[in-house]
Amino acid sequence: MGEFERIARLARRFGLPPAPAVGIGHDCALVPPAGTWTAWSVDASVEGVHFARNLIALDQAADRAVEAALSDLAAAGATIEWGLRGGCGVLSAMAFPPSLDEAGFDALVDGTARAVERHGGRVLGGNLSTAPVVSLTTTVIGRLDGHGLSRAGARPGETVYVTGVVGAAALGLHALRRAADDPRFEPFIMRWRAPRARLDVGCFISPHATAAIDLSDGLAQDLGHLCRASGCAVILDVARLPMLAGQRDAAAALGLDAVHLALTGGEDYELCFTAGNLPASPTFLGSWTAVGEVVAGCGVLVRDAKGTRAFAPAGWDHFRTGA
Amino acid sequence: MGEFERIARLARRFGLPPAPAVGIGHDCALVPPAGTWTAWSVDASVEGVHFARNLIALDQAADRAVEAALSDLAAAGATIEWGLRGGCGVLSAMAFPPSLDEAGFDALVDGTARAVERHGGRVLGGNLSTAPVVSLTTTVIGRLDGHGLSRAGARPGETVYVTGVVGAAALGLHALRRAADDPRFEPFIMRWRAPRARLDVGCFISPHATAAIDLSDGLAQDLGHLCRASGCAVILDVARLPMLAGQRDAAAALGLDAVHLALTGGEDYELCFTAGNLPASPTFLGSWTAVGEVVAGCGVLVRDAKGTRAFAPAGWDHFRTGA
Repeated sequence: MGEFERIARLARRFGLPPAPAVGIGHDCALVPPAGTWTAWSVDASVEGVHFARNLIALDQAADRAVEAALSDLAAAGATIEWGLRGGCGVLSAMAFPPSLDEAGFDALVDGTARAVERHGGRVLGGNLSTAPVVSLTTTVIGRLDGHGLSRAGARPGETVYVTGVVGAAALGLHALRRAADDPRFEPFIMRWRAPRARLDVGCFISPHATAAIDLSDGLAQDLGHLCRASGCAVILDVARLPMLAGQRDAAAALGLDAVHLALTGGEDYELCFTAGNLPASPTFLGSWTAVGEVVAGCGVLVRDAKGTRAFAPAGWDHFRTGA
Repeated sequence: MGEFERIARLARRFGLPPAPAVGIGHDCALVPPAGTWTAWSVDASVEGVHFARNLIALDQAADRAVEAALSDLAAAGATIEWGLRGGCGVLSAMAFPPSLDEAGFDALVDGTARAVERHGGRVLGGNLSTAPVVSLTTTVIGRLDGHGLSRAGARPGETVYVTGVVGAAALGLHALRRAADDPRFEPFIMRWRAPRARLDVGCFISPHATAAIDLSDGLAQDLGHLCRASGCAVILDVARLPMLAGQRDAAAALGLDAVHLALTGGEDYELCFTAGNLPASPTFLGSWTAVGEVVAGCGVLVRDAKGTRAFAPAGWDHFRTGA
C-alpha cells in the first residue's frame, strides 16, 4: 500500500471536517476562527519508550497516544468538540517501519479515530513517514471558555484536588511486565492501557480552579511543576490519596508500596488542580478528591502519621529515568 | 542534562510568547484568538529517512525540518508572523537517542529557533522524548487573510506557475551522495540543505491564485495531487521549467537528465499554483515562472519538441520509494 492510498484510507476513516473547513489530503487544514482562546499541545508516543507491542495492541497504543495528548488539553480546561464553532481538532503524525502490515496500519488509524471521536473531535490532518519504530505524534488544539488554566495561579490557602485514582496505571504496568495473566491485576492494567483524558472535568472546573496539570510523570513530580510555576508549596495528605479498590493489596503482591506508587507512578492521565471554592461534582462527571492544601514556600511536602516532610519527586524523566 | 533542564533551555532559546499568551513549560500553549481563519499542518523529519548526519549538520537538519513544515503553510497563503494579533505559531516535538550530546541538543534547538524566527514566528510549545533516531515533528499554525488556498480550485484556462527553481534540491542531494567536495555542486547542495518556505509569496498570491501546493515530492507528482483535487489536467511546458544557472551541465556531469529531475525531484519546497490573472511580482519577492496551463481532463501532461504526452509521476512515496 503506497503513501497516497494510505492517505485516502485516512480520509475515509477520519472523515473530512464539516464545510467550509478543509482537511485531510490538502497541504494544511483550513479552519474557521473559533472566536475564543485556544489551547495547543503536542505529545509523542514512541515504541520502546512509551509502549511495547507485547504489552499493548497497536489500536490501543494509538488510542492511548491520543488520550495522553488530550490530557494536556484537559489541564487547560479545553474541549475538542467540533460543535457549531469549530476552531479545534487533532493532527496525527504517524511514523512506522515499512514492514508494518496493512492490519497494523489500520489498527493505528482505527485507535486514533476512536479516541478522537470519543471526545467529539475531528482529525483534520497529519503526516505519514517511515521510521525505525512506531512513533505517534499527536497535535491537539482545543477551544477554551475564557483564558484557560495553566500551571501558574495556585495560592496559599487553596485546596489541591486530583480526579480519579493515582498510582493505578503504574501498578498495572508493573503487573503487565511481571504477571500479566493474573486477573486481579486486570483493573490496574486497564488503567495503564486505556487512560481517559479528563476533558469533561477540565471544562467543568475551569471557571473555578486556579491552576491545573495533568498527571503523566507522577503526582509529586507533576505537582512540583505546578508549585514552581505558581511560586508556592503543597502539603499532600497521604491518607487521602485516592486509589482503586484492592490497590494496596495488589501493590503488596508485587512487592511495591502503594503510597510510594501513588506519589511517583506516572501515566494515570488524571487531573491535579487547585481551587478555593469548588462546586460539588455533578453526578455525570467522574469524582475528584481533596488531597492536600496549598501553602507558602516551595516544593511538595507529604503528611502522614509520622509527620510532614519534603518529598523529593522521583517521577519519569526521559533523559534520566532512561528509555 | 535531564528533561526539565532541557525544557528550561528551550524556554530560554525560543523565548516565551508575548503576554497574555502562555507557552513553553505549561501543559498547553494558551493562545488568544486570531479572529481569522487559520491553516494547520504537521511535518516529520526522521534521521535515515529525510536526512542523514553525514549529509547535513544537526542545526541545519532542524532548520530544514521547520522550513519543510512551513512550506505547507506557504501553499495555504498563511503567515506565522506573531505581529499584533497572535493566533499563529509553532510546536516542536523533538525525539532523539539518549546518546545525543549537549551540543547536539543545542544544535537542534538553535536550528529550530533560527528557522521560526526567520519568518517572524514563535515556538509556543512542544515535546521531548527519547527515540532510536533523531526525529523532528513540527506543527505549524498560520494565520490567513480570507479563507486561504487549498489544492482544489484550479480551472481550465488558468496558468500554472512555480516559484524559484525546480529539481535543484534533488540534484544537490545526488551530488552530496556522490561528489560532495566538488564546488560546482555547491549551489545545488545548498538548495537541498537550506530550503526556504515561500511564505511571503504565498501571502502575496493568496488573493489571486485559485489553487496551490508546495513542491516536496516532485513537481509532476505534486501537481498531480492538485489536478485530482481540482478535477482538471495540466500541460507543463518543459522548456519553461525554471532551473539554476548551470543546472543542466551539473545534472549531465552526474549522468542525470535535468528535465526529468525538474519534473520528479522532490524537496525544492517551492510553490506551484494556478491563477487566471496575477499581478507582477514585486521586486522584494522571489520570482515565479509560468510553466504551463490548466486544461479539461485529468492528470499531468508534458509538452516538448516531440509533442504533448501524459507524464506518469515518479516522485517520492514513503512506502514505495522506500526509506
